Amino acid sequence: MLLAERQIIARIRKQVRPFGPIVAGIGDDTAILRFPSNDEILVTTDLCVEDVHFRRQWHPAHVVGHRCLARGISDIAAMGGTPIAAFLSLALPAKLPQKWLDGFFEGFLALAKQFRVTLAGGDIAESPSGVTADIVVLGTAPKGTAIRRSGARPGDFVYVTGQIGGAGGALKMLLFGGKKLKAKDYPRHFYPAPRVAVGQHLRAKKIASAMIDLSDGLSTDLAHICEESAVGAEVMASAIPRARIGPGGRLVDLETALNAGEDYELLFTAPPRRKVPKSIAGVAVTLIGKITRGRKMVLIEGSKRIPLKSAGWQHFQKSK
Amino acid sequence: MLLAERQIIARIRKQVRPFGPIVAGIGDDTAILRFPSNDEILVTTDLCVEDVHFRRQWHPAHVVGHRCLARGISDIAAMGGTPIAAFLSLALPAKLPQKWLDGFFEGFLALAKQFRVTLAGGDIAESPSGVTADIVVLGTAPKGTAIRRSGARPGDFVYVTGQIGGAGGALKMLLFGGKKLKAKDYPRHFYPAPRVAVGQHLRAKKIASAMIDLSDGLSTDLAHICEESAVGAEVMASAIPRARIGPGGRLVDLETALNAGEDYELLFTAPPRRKVPKSIAGVAVTLIGKITRGRKMVLIEGSKRIPLKSAGWQHFQKSK
Repeated sequence: MLLAERQIIARIRKQVRPFGPIVAGIGDDTAILRFPSNDEILVTTDLCVEDVHFRRQWHPAHVVGHRCLARGISDIAAMGGTPIAAFLSLALPAKLPQKWLDGFFEGFLALAKQFRVTLAGGDIAESPSGVTADIVVLGTAPKGTAIRRSGARPGDFVYVTGQIGGAGGALKMLLFGGKKLKAKDYPRHFYPAPRVAVGQHLRAKKIASAMIDLSDGLSTDLAHICEESAVGAEVMASAIPRARIGPGGRLVDLETALNAGEDYELLFTAPPRRKVPKSIAGVAVTLIGKITRGRKMVLIEGSKRIPLKSAGWQHFQKSK
Repeated sequence: MLLAERQIIARIRKQVRPFGPIVAGIGDDTAILRFPSNDEILVTTDLCVEDVHFRRQWHPAHVVGHRCLARGISDIAAMGGTPIAAFLSLALPAKLPQKWLDGFFEGFLALAKQFRVTLAGGDIAESPSGVTADIVVLGTAPKGTAIRRSGARPGDFVYVTGQIGGAGGALKMLLFGGKKLKAKDYPRHFYPAPRVAVGQHLRAKKIASAMIDLSDGLSTDLAHICEESAVGAEVMASAIPRARIGPGGRLVDLETALNAGEDYELLFTAPPRRKVPKSIAGVAVTLIGKITRGRKMVLIEGSKRIPLKSAGWQHFQKSK
């Protein structure tokens, strides 16, 4: 059973070490943050709902905490920003074991420490059903430099970091394989790594014209860039860096790499004359396509040109 | 039934008019905000969970939207700040009528417009059970001026704005009266008004030494000030401005005024020589007690001195 709200908050407060410009964190009506005056503030919020975004029988508590914060930090990475502070709202079933909540914060705060992000506030309330966590992350970027979805231009090349489909490949095994997976064997699913250093490099060197993180899947996230930039895109199927997963190192299939989400790699565009490194901060960067004038997305497989539909996850979608 | 996620977002985006320093709102990985360089950023988050914070059979959809945002704006008011931007994360049952969601946004956006707050982002996900809304509000205050809970000193007087117990009085009628209430007859419960102008005046004129908004109830929120300031307090029962509620104008009882929450009036302390107006921005200000050196809270009723316990709402509390 959970401790009383006040005891939970006191316990978390003891574990939090403030980094950076936090004037006041947990314990007042609001947090107070002081940012460099030349910076803009980046704000992102992401919901993690039990049995929608995670399952307690599949995902150990510390993994849920890690994945929850990783989603928020990844959105800051997708702007080329620096994550600063996190706020966490938790709706919890009264019967949740306190040990589960402690594990959640263990994973959450370990990732926060790695990225020097301060947990600066939040809220706790009782949930009539499962766990719901809403994560808010604030970050900064120098004025006018954040990389938006809307900057892609016809002729730009399309790049992706790392390898993709690994998180979704593991999810398919959980959904259809009927057995639990060891978290350490499938790190892309259980411990996704936000690409903060890569995003910052792309911003500081003015390489990327548009950027997004792969949370919904390549086909859907590329569609977001195309919509906001009013452009189309061509993607070469053979160029997509598909992930290898599990102890056997099985290569995920093309459909998974195209449509499964939660890899938290970065998808970006850059003008054709811009020199793009093959690797940034130890992460591979791969050219997979180009931006076109039409508003359509096309997948090129050998000599075939196939319409590429955004087939990633969408809530309340009646049919695909 | 709800529209698909993408259609819901498109519909909201069409309704939002940005005020103030919003460089980018809904539609990118993060919002981008630009604040005056001499300001600090205030951040608050509040959960609204169906059947915990509201019930769909008691509260019309627009009331839920209003109350949800009012909670966040009130926290900014409690610092003496100016609310700027809101972020809203919604976990929604797939079977929720789209009409309910439209009503929710009607109430939410009407209050946002009143306070010139921009809905600048958020998230939407499916909920396996009821509606959960997490509201984040960002505000500003000039550097070093935000009024914190920790500034109360022995000898300071304790003040409260408006009348209190009105929201809780209506809630008790809903809980124990067995019938629905008309929203317009109980505005303190259904349409709470965040005291932004009062808070700003108290900050700008350097009147308040500590402040909090009454969300958990006077006894609990005063305890928060006492804890963070390491002081005690004495409250005169007869001085508490109890609200009149309903068409008959019934005065709420003392217990309700002391312990019921969600009035969103301001509770603040001020040094004894500070001149405190009887009314600020049209809202009454009432002296109800003083801060003491001991760490205890005492209620003075006639010649009796009774220990005042924080008896407001606390989640996961086993017993009171």
